[in-house]
Amino acid sequence: MTHPLKLKQITLIGVGLIGGSFVLDLKRLGLVEKVVGVDLDADNLARALERRVIDAAFEQVCSESIHGADLVLIATPVATLPAICRTLAPLLAPHTLVSDVGSTKQSALAAFAEYLPQHLPHCIAAHPIAGSDRHGALAAQFGLYQHKKLIVCPHERQDSDGLKTLEALWQAVGAQTYRMSAAEHDAVFAAVSHMPHMIAYAYVHQIADHPDGQTYLDFAASGFRDFTRIASSHPAIWTDICLANKTSLLDLLAGQQQQLAYLQALLQSGDADALYHYFEEAQHTRDDWQARQ
Amino acid sequence: MTHPLKLKQITLIGVGLIGGSFVLDLKRLGLVEKVVGVDLDADNLARALERRVIDAAFEQVCSESIHGADLVLIATPVATLPAICRTLAPLLAPHTLVSDVGSTKQSALAAFAEYLPQHLPHCIAAHPIAGSDRHGALAAQFGLYQHKKLIVCPHERQDSDGLKTLEALWQAVGAQTYRMSAAEHDAVFAAVSHMPHMIAYAYVHQIADHPDGQTYLDFAASGFRDFTRIASSHPAIWTDICLANKTSLLDLLAGQQQQLAYLQALLQSGDADALYHYFEEAQHTRDDWQARQ
Repeated sequence: MTHPLKLKQITLIGVGLIGGSFVLDLKRLGLVEKVVGVDLDADNLARALERRVIDAAFEQVCSESIHGADLVLIATPVATLPAICRTLAPLLAPHTLVSDVGSTKQSALAAFAEYLPQHLPHCIAAHPIAGSDRHGALAAQFGLYQHKKLIVCPHERQDSDGLKTLEALWQAVGAQTYRMSAAEHDAVFAAVSHMPHMIAYAYVHQIADHPDGQTYLDFAASGFRDFTRIASSHPAIWTDICLANKTSLLDLLAGQQQQLAYLQALLQSGDADALYHYFEEAQHTRDDWQARQ
Repeated sequence: MTHPLKLKQITLIGVGLIGGSFVLDLKRLGLVEKVVGVDLDADNLARALERRVIDAAFEQVCSESIHGADLVLIATPVATLPAICRTLAPLLAPHTLVSDVGSTKQSALAAFAEYLPQHLPHCIAAHPIAGSDRHGALAAQFGLYQHKKLIVCPHERQDSDGLKTLEALWQAVGAQTYRMSAAEHDAVFAAVSHMPHMIAYAYVHQIADHPDGQTYLDFAASGFRDFTRIASSHPAIWTDICLANKTSLLDLLAGQQQQLAYLQALLQSGDADALYHYFEEAQHTRDDWQARQ
């Protein structure tokens, strides 16, 4: 690297919306010369090549696909990170940065520490807060990260130059970067992202389980549509995330059951004032949040 | 009425999005000559007159506001229906239709039966499935009911001519009409509408109650936004609805707690296959629903 932000090569493992959109913008900005894509799905790789999301394609992590990379970006479901790190270990050049984009960061740091202990200073746990219902290489788009947040979770052995380079790359594609501990990250996203997904799946499951559920669904309207949109998320990705963040989620699931039990008690007693007050507090919290967006 | 669908006067009690949009379209279609608005909010009435949603305004239900009405449409929060019916009782002409737009229909039929027993054949419990985050007379809009559903819940003493007239009016503004019992209606909408509201309020309340909740909210993104949109709904309206439909909702709240307890057990045991299967079933249900819209 002559200029710290001018990379010769990024190897992107998992060529989908998240990683694909990142490298599209970096290529447009002239911040990377070559992107090597690694993906299990040959069709997806072919589409990524056609759309010039990537410049070379491999179906596995191997010396050829990793050789020459200034940055190896792992953008696959979080449960795959340990095996990928284990495969990467003998292939990395000393200067190569390794980073990820997963939704759970304690699990990412654990994978880096276990399988890339020699390389740990150059391993950066990161999480861009952006998404879409679309996925795969065809979903990759310019400008996805404009005004989005990027969290990095530095660890005790972190090399600060590599961290700054990665932050600068994400800033270059439009993201605001934040630093927090992996534990803090996982608590935050358990609350504002992982729990809504679990609840949305649980609610839709409850309707599906009901003998009259299909009839009920005929009358679902826009409130249902928006409330359940995230129940259309990819089940494999969310299985991984929920298991990787189970400690935070178990606490939150218990807390949510307490909230529902309190609502049951209010309905049982017919306490309109308390129910109004409860709804109003939630409304104010939601309205205040919306006003800050 | 010379033509069954040509009304001389509608008196609209509660001049907001739901009733206002209905009469705007009926006026445009020439299906009503005069709309009299009744609302507690003088400013709202003034705006409704300016925008010609209504042609005359009263701040209370009285002989002047009801006199001459072919249809009295009650479009106020569901808990206000009993008191309004009691006031209406001595004011109604024998032919006047009375209908409502509330989200709970057993409570509506109970109010009609208790306070308008003589007039019951001409009382029609109805529920248009349309809404918006906006409310008040300024939210009234043409075309709100195009391709929307309108449920009527006929009762044993229902006069069929009046029922058909009301259905025809809703069809004229674009709604598809459905008939079901009030009990069936309330079970359906508890499941697909009232429960999501309760859960959304409960989830936002859980975040608001958390000591770090405000920090968490700084990182909430589009999934959170859509999942919690209905937690910005009006707390008074939803207090009324939830209390009016408490029997169905108590069952559903218990069922939802069971779903969450099952998810807790899956996380505790780390059963990835079962968690994937659970999420996938919900995803299929949601995707199938979306495909039918």
